[in-house]
Amino acid sequence: MPQNPVPQNPSLNLAASSIEITREICDIESVSGNETTLADAIVASLAGADHLEVIRDGDTIVARTHLGRAQRVVIAGHIDTVPLNDNLPTRPETIDGVDYLWGRGTVDMKAGVAVQLKLAVELTEPGVDVTWMWYDHEEVSDSLNGLGRLARNRPDLFAGDFAILGEPTNSQVEGGCNGNLRVEIRAFGLRAHSARSWVGENAIHKVAPILQTLADYVPREVEVDGLVYREGLNAVGISGGIAGNIIPDECMVHVNYRFAPSRTVDEAIAHVRDLFPGYEITVVDSAAGARPGLDAPLAQEFLAAVGGQAHPKYGWTDVARFSAMGVPAVNYGPGDPLKAHADDERVALHQITECEQGLRSWLSATAG
Amino acid sequence: MPQNPVPQNPSLNLAASSIEITREICDIESVSGNETTLADAIVASLAGADHLEVIRDGDTIVARTHLGRAQRVVIAGHIDTVPLNDNLPTRPETIDGVDYLWGRGTVDMKAGVAVQLKLAVELTEPGVDVTWMWYDHEEVSDSLNGLGRLARNRPDLFAGDFAILGEPTNSQVEGGCNGNLRVEIRAFGLRAHSARSWVGENAIHKVAPILQTLADYVPREVEVDGLVYREGLNAVGISGGIAGNIIPDECMVHVNYRFAPSRTVDEAIAHVRDLFPGYEITVVDSAAGARPGLDAPLAQEFLAAVGGQAHPKYGWTDVARFSAMGVPAVNYGPGDPLKAHADDERVALHQITECEQGLRSWLSATAG
Repeated sequence: MPQNPVPQNPSLNLAASSIEITREICDIESVSGNETTLADAIVASLAGADHLEVIRDGDTIVARTHLGRAQRVVIAGHIDTVPLNDNLPTRPETIDGVDYLWGRGTVDMKAGVAVQLKLAVELTEPGVDVTWMWYDHEEVSDSLNGLGRLARNRPDLFAGDFAILGEPTNSQVEGGCNGNLRVEIRAFGLRAHSARSWVGENAIHKVAPILQTLADYVPREVEVDGLVYREGLNAVGISGGIAGNIIPDECMVHVNYRFAPSRTVDEAIAHVRDLFPGYEITVVDSAAGARPGLDAPLAQEFLAAVGGQAHPKYGWTDVARFSAMGVPAVNYGPGDPLKAHADDERVALHQITECEQGLRSWLSATAG
Repeated sequence: MPQNPVPQNPSLNLAASSIEITREICDIESVSGNETTLADAIVASLAGADHLEVIRDGDTIVARTHLGRAQRVVIAGHIDTVPLNDNLPTRPETIDGVDYLWGRGTVDMKAGVAVQLKLAVELTEPGVDVTWMWYDHEEVSDSLNGLGRLARNRPDLFAGDFAILGEPTNSQVEGGCNGNLRVEIRAFGLRAHSARSWVGENAIHKVAPILQTLADYVPREVEVDGLVYREGLNAVGISGGIAGNIIPDECMVHVNYRFAPSRTVDEAIAHVRDLFPGYEITVVDSAAGARPGLDAPLAQEFLAAVGGQAHPKYGWTDVARFSAMGVPAVNYGPGDPLKAHADDERVALHQITECEQGLRSWLSATAG
């Protein structure tokens, strides 16, 4: 077992409440690309936890137990945030009698990370072996994603029977995720001076059928492993035009298709090609969805332990990365996902406590 | 009569052929905003022409006779060009047996200016009084247009019975011009994460009917004073979208309407509003058209003198400025308008000579 890295920075106070830890790590700004200070602090805080092997890859930290349990669970969360918008430092807020912590990262997803950090050091004898992962660059291009990098560098660390990602779910279990496809659809024409438009061919006019198809489209609702996934097909951008007196020779519609995890990326691309015949279609981004994974025995136990019912996750999350590696995975974390990235991002304090209690009781009780 | 400005710069050789003068003034680069050197040279060249009163307003130069003729003609041309694209200095070219002068400004519109400069100094006793105008900033925003500035500063200089603008027309008479209207048409929606598109409202999808209306639109052909004007209604730009994962809450279609001079600007705006009900419409630019003005007696004489048949001018030109001031005006100048602003801008030499001969014979013969 390699020696744990030596801490160089002041460590976090992981003996504090998970609410206090949330506040402490939110106030260490860590917009994507700027995670090093927080990553250093996390490593420093784990120095005394002798039940954990700590591995660092860039600003991603892995801490895992080696208790010889029959099963292993991976529990992960990203430590970066989207850019600030005058929403740090954090502050307490009370709205309609509910206490919140307000500020960037409180929802997406440092409250979840705070709970994980606290349990990582306190649960020295969980019923399953646990691999904790805190990673960088989730909020930016997929090519930078710390979990993706770790999967390339150390796929062995992903071994496990079940995975939990601490993305905000109002502390409910959300299973799997929709797939995500983005394409650019182009129409072409012939440039001309607009005073003599009849010698040209207007490319913008040619995308009218694309927009009409999008406006008329009725997205599917698809049941996958007992959860109903709602799809979506939308223009997320449109551009065309050269100058106020020129007939444009090109127009591009940027289309985003969110598809149920029962459909593969290739099937999603074929569907889009079927919908828009005769246009040039370029795939600019694609990510497979993830089936809910709730048929795994550990998933069933987890769901029973934290109570309540599982819901589908609509947005793409890194659970798909685990799913693709053969590890069933769910999302489970404090915070309302509708407040993620919002200027008034804020997490309800009781959700942090609920999440901590749910994970703690399950990890303590689970027979490994 | 004010004293003519004293020349400070080398003057042009206006005794040379109009082809040679074209080459000389094209090689003095005068992209809009950079006309001073050429304007100085023009003023210097007029110093010896005692039959002309010379007035300067910025880089616009007016030179007029005071011969007591019964009628006065205004003959005007702009001295600026659109930006270069590696197309200076000029060079001779022969294509399919036709001799050309190649280079920026040769068509739009220094060949016309060259003819005008030569005739201004040579025709000391024209049959009508002539007000020559060479002006700056035609190729840029209307607010900078030198002719517009002169109309505000010295409207008295525009007094006349007929006007000729030397814009390229293949040395044919082109009457009037279409009006020009640009509007921004906006649709609004509700922003949302594209993973939950059903909580938002897609503004891009809402412009589908706008594009369909444009695609289906059949432009009018309208006879005005014997000439048939062809209209055009086109999207010249479209924009919308915030990011690849956001349902856009705004989309804008930039529409250009070229309308026959029988329609006023207000009527054109009303027509556009009728076509796109329920959308926010912002007028960003408008310019009235100009009726052909060919019913004026001087226009009839001019047309007879230069031979051939009048055609409609589709593009907006400064003839509309004269028309608005009550002076009937036509376009008449060397060069193919389809080569204006082109990288391979080039004027056929025989058109320069034809234009010179046409203007010279009419101005010499016309009984004032």
